[in-house]
Amino acid sequence: MIILFTDFGAHDIYVAQVKAELLQHSPSAVVVDLLHNAPNFRVEAGAHLLAALQARFPAGSVFLAVVDPRVGTDRDAIILQADEKWYVGPDNGLLSVISARAAQRRTWRIIWRPQRLSSSFHGRDLFAPVAAWIARGEFPQDNVQEVPDLQVRLGPDDLAEIIYVDHYGNALTGLRASGVPRSAVLALGEHRVPFARVFAEVSTGSAFWYENSIGLVELAANGASAAALLGAKIGDAVHVESK
Amino acid sequence: MIILFTDFGAHDIYVAQVKAELLQHSPSAVVVDLLHNAPNFRVEAGAHLLAALQARFPAGSVFLAVVDPRVGTDRDAIILQADEKWYVGPDNGLLSVISARAAQRRTWRIIWRPQRLSSSFHGRDLFAPVAAWIARGEFPQDNVQEVPDLQVRLGPDDLAEIIYVDHYGNALTGLRASGVPRSAVLALGEHRVPFARVFAEVSTGSAFWYENSIGLVELAANGASAAALLGAKIGDAVHVESK
Amino acid sequence: MIILFTDFGAHDIYVAQVKAELLQHSPSAVVVDLLHNAPNFRVEAGAHLLAALQARFPAGSVFLAVVDPRVGTDRDAIILQADEKWYVGPDNGLLSVISARAAQRRTWRIIWRPQRLSSSFHGRDLFAPVAAWIARGEFPQDNVQEVPDLQVRLGPDDLAEIIYVDHYGNALTGLRASGVPRSAVLALGEHRVPFARVFAEVSTGSAFWYENSIGLVELAANGASAAALLGAKIGDAVHVESK
Repeated sequence: MIILFTDFGAHDIYVAQVKAELLQHSPSAVVVDLLHNAPNFRVEAGAHLLAALQARFPAGSVFLAVVDPRVGTDRDAIILQADEKWYVGPDNGLLSVISARAAQRRTWRIIWRPQRLSSSFHGRDLFAPVAAWIARGEFPQDNVQEVPDLQVRLGPDDLAEIIYVDHYGNALTGLRASGVPRSAVLALGEHRVPFARVFAEVSTGSAFWYENSIGLVELAANGASAAALLGAKIGDAVHVESK
Repeated sequence: MIILFTDFGAHDIYVAQVKAELLQHSPSAVVVDLLHNAPNFRVEAGAHLLAALQARFPAGSVFLAVVDPRVGTDRDAIILQADEKWYVGPDNGLLSVISARAAQRRTWRIIWRPQRLSSSFHGRDLFAPVAAWIARGEFPQDNVQEVPDLQVRLGPDDLAEIIYVDHYGNALTGLRASGVPRSAVLALGEHRVPFARVFAEVSTGSAFWYENSIGLVELAANGASAAALLGAKIGDAVHVESK
Repeated sequence: MIILFTDFGAHDIYVAQVKAELLQHSPSAVVVDLLHNAPNFRVEAGAHLLAALQARFPAGSVFLAVVDPRVGTDRDAIILQADEKWYVGPDNGLLSVISARAAQRRTWRIIWRPQRLSSSFHGRDLFAPVAAWIARGEFPQDNVQEVPDLQVRLGPDDLAEIIYVDHYGNALTGLRASGVPRSAVLALGEHRVPFARVFAEVSTGSAFWYENSIGLVELAANGASAAALLGAKIGDAVHVESK
């Protein structure tokens, strides 16, 4: 399974070009669109979101992960193998949270370059062929160089910020819920938000935080947009306050 | 074929998690995204929209249908077999229009619960595995209980409301066009809208109603957004007036 | 590979109906969504965009291309074979730029009509079955009539207009970059936009033009929306000025 995590836009002209490239190199690959609306240019938010999401996919999955504002510069292209899953993308921090949290990992710099390499679309020209080779079981040994670690490293720690706002208006944070006591109150600007277990537990229009389905602390509201209610946007700081 | 009809958002983080689950349980399944922008929390509108859309899919299709504002409460999870198609989803009315109109139907309550059941994402944790089992031909006999009928029943009648607005601005109603004479005028608030057969039959910017491609009465406009022109939004009442 | 290029909307109810039809006629087809947000009703912009995009897909690809404001009138339905790729769609100009630029081409009028032909959705009822037959290697010889050329012809020339704005706010033109010297300045209204090779080469918030990943002249801005910065929208004229 090849899983796409990008900021290419879900309804734009880029994803299909990546898929055509994947299918030419790995015709029987199953390709799943995980997210193409990763926050534009926001590498750190994307790194924490992908770290939480990858847990839902089986061992052997190959992730093509591209949020790459510095495409066309000298940032490296890398392959990461972490806990039996594969990741292909830029060495700009995007894969570094997964790497730092992995029990087992190996990292390779991609030295191969395609004959036609556009300056703006390495997702199609460089990362897609490499991901397709790995997906069909042919690791490109001669085209990579093993390295001890990534160059850009954000570390394993949680990120106490809003990292994503979904289409319901739920605001996901980079905090893993396992580390936050249910008695805690979440502070976002002027707002103090208490815990609830499910949406139906609070009154309509009220905000709460809960452990979402990928294990993160999420600000939500029953039948309403928490982001609108709380004025939450990507990058806003949140604080955990003990009661 | 597994067909997804949800309000999970077409460009959000939820659909891929459902697909990963489906593919783990039914690796060769063909999965088709019917709609992920079903009106949020609007069970009745979704029920009528799905009832019209399902007619275009072949016998044997398995629909995973989730518009589920009360996820995490005690509402039942069900399997419906209606006229040789399968439906898996919450017992909250969403499948009840299809059930009420079917010539032949059977209904089962899902008693199985997965080991890891999130409180907010039964689409992934509960409905997806069940849909995948059915798609690969293994009805989960030991994990269900046949019941005489759904608990929440909206009945077979048409819904004289706007149930969906498409990206062109066309406003679909819950009225089946076969029951509405071409001479009728459709009333929406102050507006009176006449019939036309095709878009090119009316002048640019004029609104009309017609039988759309899934058999429903639809308010449209030539080269313009009928919803903007008429101020139509989901839930607005429409009336059929004889001339 | 069947490739979809339409204005049906990426998150609307139409694409899945087309796919269900394709899969019923060609169960093992690989279907790729190239673009479903082609500019609504804008046949000329769509023709130039598709002409640039098709180059990324392999020989043998079958394109289902539908931007069809006159659906339900007497415009023809056609099959175009151009440089070893197949195209199925309306004869309204949408395929004519590809046709005019092709080294080798054949054109057929589709005379077959399905039993159930809706007046508004030929993409599903007429074009999808034909595309599926071609994709599975069964050219519908008895249902077509070879013709010398398309009826509506826009010619092979570039289009000096904005033809598409992507989700980053980059504004694509219908100018092929191979014909524009890097020293040229691009004029759009009051604005004069210089060339740069990659995004990271200009300061944040500055607009530039560059050869994009499909060979077109594109107006972009580093870390910002060029469309917002320049007030660019589809249909706006651009001029190439020599320095």
